[in-house]
Amino acid sequence: MLSSSTSTHRLHQPPPPPPPPASHQFRSAAAFRRPPSPAAAPLRARPQRGGGTTIRAIDAAQPFDYESRAAGLLEERQRLKIAIVGFGNFGQFLARTFARQGHTLLAHSRSDYSSLAASVGASYFQDPHDLCECHPDVVLLATSILSAEAVLRSLPVHRLRRNTLFVDVLSVKEFPRNLLLGSLPPDFDVICTHPMFGPESARDGWDGLPFVFDKVRVGDCPARRARAEAFLNIFEREGCRMVEMTCAEHDAHAAETQFLTHTVGRMLAMLELRSTPINTKGYETLLRLVDNTCSDSFDLYNGLFMYNKNSTELLNRLEWAMDSVKKKLFDGLHDVLRKQLFEGSPHAPNNTPVRK
Amino acid sequence: MLSSSTSTHRLHQPPPPPPPPASHQFRSAAAFRRPPSPAAAPLRARPQRGGGTTIRAIDAAQPFDYESRAAGLLEERQRLKIAIVGFGNFGQFLARTFARQGHTLLAHSRSDYSSLAASVGASYFQDPHDLCECHPDVVLLATSILSAEAVLRSLPVHRLRRNTLFVDVLSVKEFPRNLLLGSLPPDFDVICTHPMFGPESARDGWDGLPFVFDKVRVGDCPARRARAEAFLNIFEREGCRMVEMTCAEHDAHAAETQFLTHTVGRMLAMLELRSTPINTKGYETLLRLVDNTCSDSFDLYNGLFMYNKNSTELLNRLEWAMDSVKKKLFDGLHDVLRKQLFEGSPHAPNNTPVRK
Repeated sequence: MLSSSTSTHRLHQPPPPPPPPASHQFRSAAAFRRPPSPAAAPLRARPQRGGGTTIRAIDAAQPFDYESRAAGLLEERQRLKIAIVGFGNFGQFLARTFARQGHTLLAHSRSDYSSLAASVGASYFQDPHDLCECHPDVVLLATSILSAEAVLRSLPVHRLRRNTLFVDVLSVKEFPRNLLLGSLPPDFDVICTHPMFGPESARDGWDGLPFVFDKVRVGDCPARRARAEAFLNIFEREGCRMVEMTCAEHDAHAAETQFLTHTVGRMLAMLELRSTPINTKGYETLLRLVDNTCSDSFDLYNGLFMYNKNSTELLNRLEWAMDSVKKKLFDGLHDVLRKQLFEGSPHAPNNTPVRK
Repeated sequence: MLSSSTSTHRLHQPPPPPPPPASHQFRSAAAFRRPPSPAAAPLRARPQRGGGTTIRAIDAAQPFDYESRAAGLLEERQRLKIAIVGFGNFGQFLARTFARQGHTLLAHSRSDYSSLAASVGASYFQDPHDLCECHPDVVLLATSILSAEAVLRSLPVHRLRRNTLFVDVLSVKEFPRNLLLGSLPPDFDVICTHPMFGPESARDGWDGLPFVFDKVRVGDCPARRARAEAFLNIFEREGCRMVEMTCAEHDAHAAETQFLTHTVGRMLAMLELRSTPINTKGYETLLRLVDNTCSDSFDLYNGLFMYNKNSTELLNRLEWAMDSVKKKLFDGLHDVLRKQLFEGSPHAPNNTPVRK
């Protein structure tokens, strides 16, 4: 890991005068991106021969360090200064991988996480003004869903550069999309993302795990596009399955995949199920589901409900489903009872006579 | 597999005169039982030296075939003539293993399964009188829960030997226990069992899978005890985890392990869940649960409900659990709304001010 304070000062201090919105600080990295690699070695991709518009006679003799200098330059350009706002469990989890990839990390939270920040090589700022004055390339909103709005409103965004990229990693997407579009100056770029994993499920790395993103607003100039790509590339390099979909699509799916799973887990938790001497495989599945969903906070679950408009409908459907199943069972009981009452048949519900 | 008709005639035809209830046809096999073996080779256990009351000088010279004859005799004595009543999916599934172990199989069902019976080496009897006249050692009731009573009442049990062993394999236990005790002559032995697996879950053998049993009534004489042991030994030899518990205990546990699992699976099935591009691991668990529970018949599920008195309470608790979870979520919504109505605070529910 880099010593972030050194790196911060070397690369970014003293702050340069604010560049024009269409700054060319970033060159498109898309052409150079390596295929996703679980190992995520530091970027050493070579510029593609003949790519771009500038044609150089690179088959002619080049200075001996041409290639290593080119690779170094590219790596430098893909390095981002990322301010993580909300440095709880999930923010710290992301920070560890960002740091390993060599990005410069700043952190801010309402609680004091300065020592935890130091342990992952991030500079910690108690005062959001100080954070914003550092002019991060990316501000990553990693608060809980419930506190996102209050935290965002507490940031002095006027101290940031005019074309800063805001990214959120909340588990719902339409709410932060509307919040960011409504609160941030129109010059700011916005990408809404949902890394669908956490410290538990990604204990062995991010390889193959889904990363949902929606490039909600990325200014139409190469530098901004390159910065967006450089940020997304963090996840691609780790081997994430990159899933691009709109925030609305995400929330429609997530009501089923996330909110439903949590609801079933929390319902079963209320029953205080215990392991029995005769667990079936299906029952053990339920016991694991309870463990997994209840290790997440109730605040997260509440956020999935309150900030996803599809959740209420799903809750209604689940209730309807329970009523339907119950109705089928009780209708069966009534059939048997009615047979006894009106036909005087014995109490077996299925008493077709057999040959004697 | 044995050719059952040959074996039936060789071993059991013509029927001997009914023996006294305390027949010594079976010697206790418990002392000779091998530890559970997944391979389930034919029994070749040697009589324990010095075991029992008859002491023989077996360290002296013995006829060259002494051991193989002893093993053969033991194996013979552990072979049972089993009549499977209800030859549906589950009855056939059990029959395949019974046949492999060398037991003589008879089968009877309300539908005509004669060709399926032949394929596992079982003699098929359309007429239950013919079946009972064959004097099986064990009558295994493998009907659905719903039809158990009607089928049992259709059997001419007076044609069986007076000390026949009745075994059921239904997924509920108190109901068949009371049914068998109430319907059968008092001389009959009764063991209620629940092999907690089926053709799907035991595709690779029965090793380690739970087999629940309750020796409800086994006459106090060596032959009857030996017959009960010989029957249970079928499952022990295949490596089943033998769980002895009362029928009441079974039903209390099974309401949670079976009925609850099926109920959750069937509720979720009503929602017609689909795989999405962003399945979480928990969601995939739910999708598998739906597949597994809905591959069983609704009749089985209905039976688990109707014939287990603990199921109604569990259904009530599940409904209470859903209401509690819902209440917590909606209380949260009301809190936010009330704050807006009475305190004029912004619409974020958690808006503790942060230092600016």
